[in-house]
Amino acid sequence: MRDLILKALQQEERVSGEQLGKSLNISRTAVWKHVNELRKLGYTIDSSPRLGYSFISSTGLLLPEEISHGLDTRIIGKNIVYREEATSTQDVAEEMARNGAEDGTVVICERQTKGRGRKGRSWESPPLHGVYISIILRPSLRPTRVPQVPLVAGVATSRAIKRVTPLQPRIKWPNDIIIGGKKAGGILTEMSSEVDRVNYILLGIGVNVNTRTSLFPEPTRSIATSLAEQCGENVSRVKFVQCLLADMEAVYSQFLSSGFDAIREEWKALNNTIGSRVKVSSGDEELEGEALDIDREGFLLVRKENGDVSRVVSGDVMLTHRLSS
Amino acid sequence: MRDLILKALQQEERVSGEQLGKSLNISRTAVWKHVNELRKLGYTIDSSPRLGYSFISSTGLLLPEEISHGLDTRIIGKNIVYREEATSTQDVAEEMARNGAEDGTVVICERQTKGRGRKGRSWESPPLHGVYISIILRPSLRPTRVPQVPLVAGVATSRAIKRVTPLQPRIKWPNDIIIGGKKAGGILTEMSSEVDRVNYILLGIGVNVNTRTSLFPEPTRSIATSLAEQCGENVSRVKFVQCLLADMEAVYSQFLSSGFDAIREEWKALNNTIGSRVKVSSGDEELEGEALDIDREGFLLVRKENGDVSRVVSGDVMLTHRLSS
Repeated sequence: MRDLILKALQQEERVSGEQLGKSLNISRTAVWKHVNELRKLGYTIDSSPRLGYSFISSTGLLLPEEISHGLDTRIIGKNIVYREEATSTQDVAEEMARNGAEDGTVVICERQTKGRGRKGRSWESPPLHGVYISIILRPSLRPTRVPQVPLVAGVATSRAIKRVTPLQPRIKWPNDIIIGGKKAGGILTEMSSEVDRVNYILLGIGVNVNTRTSLFPEPTRSIATSLAEQCGENVSRVKFVQCLLADMEAVYSQFLSSGFDAIREEWKALNNTIGSRVKVSSGDEELEGEALDIDREGFLLVRKENGDVSRVVSGDVMLTHRLSS
Repeated sequence: MRDLILKALQQEERVSGEQLGKSLNISRTAVWKHVNELRKLGYTIDSSPRLGYSFISSTGLLLPEEISHGLDTRIIGKNIVYREEATSTQDVAEEMARNGAEDGTVVICERQTKGRGRKGRSWESPPLHGVYISIILRPSLRPTRVPQVPLVAGVATSRAIKRVTPLQPRIKWPNDIIIGGKKAGGILTEMSSEVDRVNYILLGIGVNVNTRTSLFPEPTRSIATSLAEQCGENVSRVKFVQCLLADMEAVYSQFLSSGFDAIREEWKALNNTIGSRVKVSSGDEELEGEALDIDREGFLLVRKENGDVSRVVSGDVMLTHRLSS
């Protein structure tokens, strides 16, 4: 009901409590109670005795009713779960996935107390300025194809950033979002699987949207940036999440129906890794050489000093210098 | 303390309450209380006023103190968790693994209400006659090598069966335990991972030890057997689990230190699949042909009608007929 009232308020310039009540089949007093609840959530809603209610501004919170308003996706974000605080969106999503949450369920937290990056690293997650989401995916994919999913997510995240800012994000293989040479976003792909069958994927996306990275501890501070810092003004987090979910649905659907090939060129156009000298740590191994390309499965091809070419499924890349070629 | 008293009783032919109390630094009354607890668990312990206590027989339950008694493993089974009933040992193990349970933790249930097989199938789990365990493993392995783990477990399970019975188990690729042409055991390998990093593996092993498979519903009944049915007498479940954990530790350690090659020949000597005509369903695909071999990574090589050889990571195999070759 609260959700319906919010929608009605957002659609009309001004509407009386009586009209609202009639259209929703509730009393004026009930309308008034719901409006007060919305105010408590942070919405600014004007009311005047004769003219009725008028919607003035949103909360800035990533409330599901805010995100859903105008979101036109079929799967991703049809079900949105919101938490003011959690250890991490991945933890919430895992619990939900184990209990059968449907494909495309999105978990959004304002604040993570134990935000996670790849390999058990932490992800700085100050409240109300960043975007921290996890998407539960249940594709009919072999586990061996799952390493392509973070690349898909990197493309979608870049598209969303381009839609809400004038920025040109780049992707460092496999999926760091780089703007102005610094990291603005990261992607963590976890899965539960059998040997030949994915149970579910938890796709975690963290983007520093309006985050003041000067408040981060070192060494994160020196290598991190945010969209707001790069474009000089705050960005609507609600708008950004809406774009991210829509772009994710578009790119991911394309990937599922036509394979990784369908998005490989777009990934390559966005990437900053191919053509550079790189140091790659992957598992227990380290290798150094020239990043030649990504292959049709999304593996990074690295030509080592001795001329051998290694295929790397995932890892940490340090760009050493761009080659003249 | 209960565990210590049980051990003392098992070691001595007869021991007085006073002696026992002294050696454990507790009162005779305390000894008496613990002995009564053990009796409630199903142990038969004789006591006579002058001679003291005498251990007569075990419960037949898979209690951790029973399994641990004489188990000489370093990792697998150092920590044993016992449940009379659970939805499935995999569910209990998953919850524990998420909460940080150590490498080698073993979950044993007497009865599963939702025992699981591969691909979400059910696994018949009547109480007190079968063995249902899950082992939490935290190897430093790439996810791409995890498909070898069920083959490792198949070899260990076969070794354990051979130690406690005169039977000759065979393995149907990848890991069905076949005796007398029927299925006596199955293995379910699930994992939680990032793209290039295993968080944990849950290795579920179910063996029909003393199970009366005539009580199974069809179609399971016609294709299932148990160790007891095959060798004509009941098998000690405790002894079997002890062998299974010890054999698993031995084979798995060899696999971790020397790779899959180290156990490939033993797997091949046990298998009934290579050299047969097979139908394989794997993911959405079906293929038919001759099972040629398993390669160095444990993949099944199948030569199709047209001469092409497919590598299959896992799947359901139906043996059609043995080739004359």
